[in-house]
Amino acid sequence: MRIAVVGAGALGLYYGAMLQKGGHEVCFLLRRDLETIPKNGLSVFSINGDFKLFPVAGYGSSEEIGMVDLVLVGLKTFANQSYRQLITPLLKDNSIILTLQNGLGNEEALAEIFGSERIMGGVAFLCSNRGEPGVVHHLGAGRIILGEYARPYMDRAESVAAMFSMAGVPCQAVTDLKKARWEKLIWNIPFNGTCALLQKPVNVLLSNQRTRCLLRDIMFELIQAANCQSLSNPIPMAYADEMLDFTDAMGHYKPSMQIDREEGRELELEAIFARPLDAARQKGIIMPRVEALHALLEESTSRS
Amino acid sequence: MRIAVVGAGALGLYYGAMLQKGGHEVCFLLRRDLETIPKNGLSVFSINGDFKLFPVAGYGSSEEIGMVDLVLVGLKTFANQSYRQLITPLLKDNSIILTLQNGLGNEEALAEIFGSERIMGGVAFLCSNRGEPGVVHHLGAGRIILGEYARPYMDRAESVAAMFSMAGVPCQAVTDLKKARWEKLIWNIPFNGTCALLQKPVNVLLSNQRTRCLLRDIMFELIQAANCQSLSNPIPMAYADEMLDFTDAMGHYKPSMQIDREEGRELELEAIFARPLDAARQKGIIMPRVEALHALLEESTSRS
Repeated sequence: MRIAVVGAGALGLYYGAMLQKGGHEVCFLLRRDLETIPKNGLSVFSINGDFKLFPVAGYGSSEEIGMVDLVLVGLKTFANQSYRQLITPLLKDNSIILTLQNGLGNEEALAEIFGSERIMGGVAFLCSNRGEPGVVHHLGAGRIILGEYARPYMDRAESVAAMFSMAGVPCQAVTDLKKARWEKLIWNIPFNGTCALLQKPVNVLLSNQRTRCLLRDIMFELIQAANCQSLSNPIPMAYADEMLDFTDAMGHYKPSMQIDREEGRELELEAIFARPLDAARQKGIIMPRVEALHALLEESTSRS
Repeated sequence: MRIAVVGAGALGLYYGAMLQKGGHEVCFLLRRDLETIPKNGLSVFSINGDFKLFPVAGYGSSEEIGMVDLVLVGLKTFANQSYRQLITPLLKDNSIILTLQNGLGNEEALAEIFGSERIMGGVAFLCSNRGEPGVVHHLGAGRIILGEYARPYMDRAESVAAMFSMAGVPCQAVTDLKKARWEKLIWNIPFNGTCALLQKPVNVLLSNQRTRCLLRDIMFELIQAANCQSLSNPIPMAYADEMLDFTDAMGHYKPSMQIDREEGRELELEAIFARPLDAARQKGIIMPRVEALHALLEESTSRS
């Protein structure tokens, strides 16, 4: 497959590298790493074994890349107003657009511009950070759960999932993408939110009984809201404790939103907080702790 | 009246100064200002007019002060384990102990040691900060609402209130001290809590619509909890908007907990957060936003 990675942050670089290593032709749309990667290649430091790719096809514009079979979208969600400009030059009739972005609303925004038929969405359970230009660190996990946005048949999703799996990225196609999105939010909102607000890693917040309890209560609010979104089947309340155990095993991990805050970058509050809060409110569900965290995070990162 | 001020922070220094200016014999138990005040006196920079007191009776121990008619307690609540040592030498048969400390549990702790008959409590609506040693700044308000802890007659409370009023401190004696304490918490918890957490003054948090809404929702939780504490009559929900208006008028004000945090001092989380949360929980009321704020504040000020 010919694949374009649009939004080559830690996520885009890691998955793009795995696909190229798996034998696919991968084109990276680059900004920060545009000087380095075409010249020196891409180094992946991974818990599964380090590797280096050379040559790597890095481009400064989508026009240079041209048409591909699959567009992998890893943009920060506040850059979604660039969808049309960045993706249009990459499309032919049957190109697939797979967004692995955070939060809610990305498939909808893509479908609005490019039609719902070609849109797929996925959630990535990946611990990775960018290093210096030309380097990505894979610290843990990496699994993708993906699904169709509107297409009723599963064949395409199954074959994309198989492509990832064969390239060494555990990947599962599911019929209920919305449920997968909410499952990811049940982790993202408490851990990204509190770690970014307090600027402390997950193990610190998990070892204080009061913040550990807050993290679980936030997950309970989200599970309740998720289960009002017409999911195929409900998420059990026990999912909260599974996520606590899962996160205990991460040790001293900084979620991406904490790193974004430490480095002064904009946070994805609209996609990760505001849209889920709206979706819950539309079903009559108030999530007081999520609301509080959203307000505190928004003000903590405002310039005032 | 002979009065001892125990806990001569911004609150103790200001009210002690007003009482001395009003003609009472005031003895200050000092720590930080022990070198300065006996030598140079006490300067009050007040919105109602600056004044300077000299001489000022400052002491390093309660034994040197000896017996007084009224003990004014302005200690930080995490110093309450010093009650017995600091207050015992000041008492004669009919000495009154008036605590103007923050939060819940102070009258109970004093009554446990000194008997409930002599205990009075009050809440201070005072904007003041300490300056350099020998200086206190009175930035706004100053009103005290006080009441008896257990004594059924109002004569003593009325006469203490009259003493403050005649000394230029607006003061009202009320029969329901518990209600006054909760009214103060309805301000203290949202404003001290969020300003200390985000390290921003009240006007910044009031001008962001999302944090303004959070502040009001926190007050709603507290009003609901207060109204389950067998108060003489309920606090109306409209009290929240009154407090927003009252605080809008303060402008760029930093609550004391924010200043404590900025200066690396311990916060009064037990008296101001943990005890009210417990009191609510005992009546079956959960305050999710207050709980979240408490957990975040506790972790944000822990050394981990």
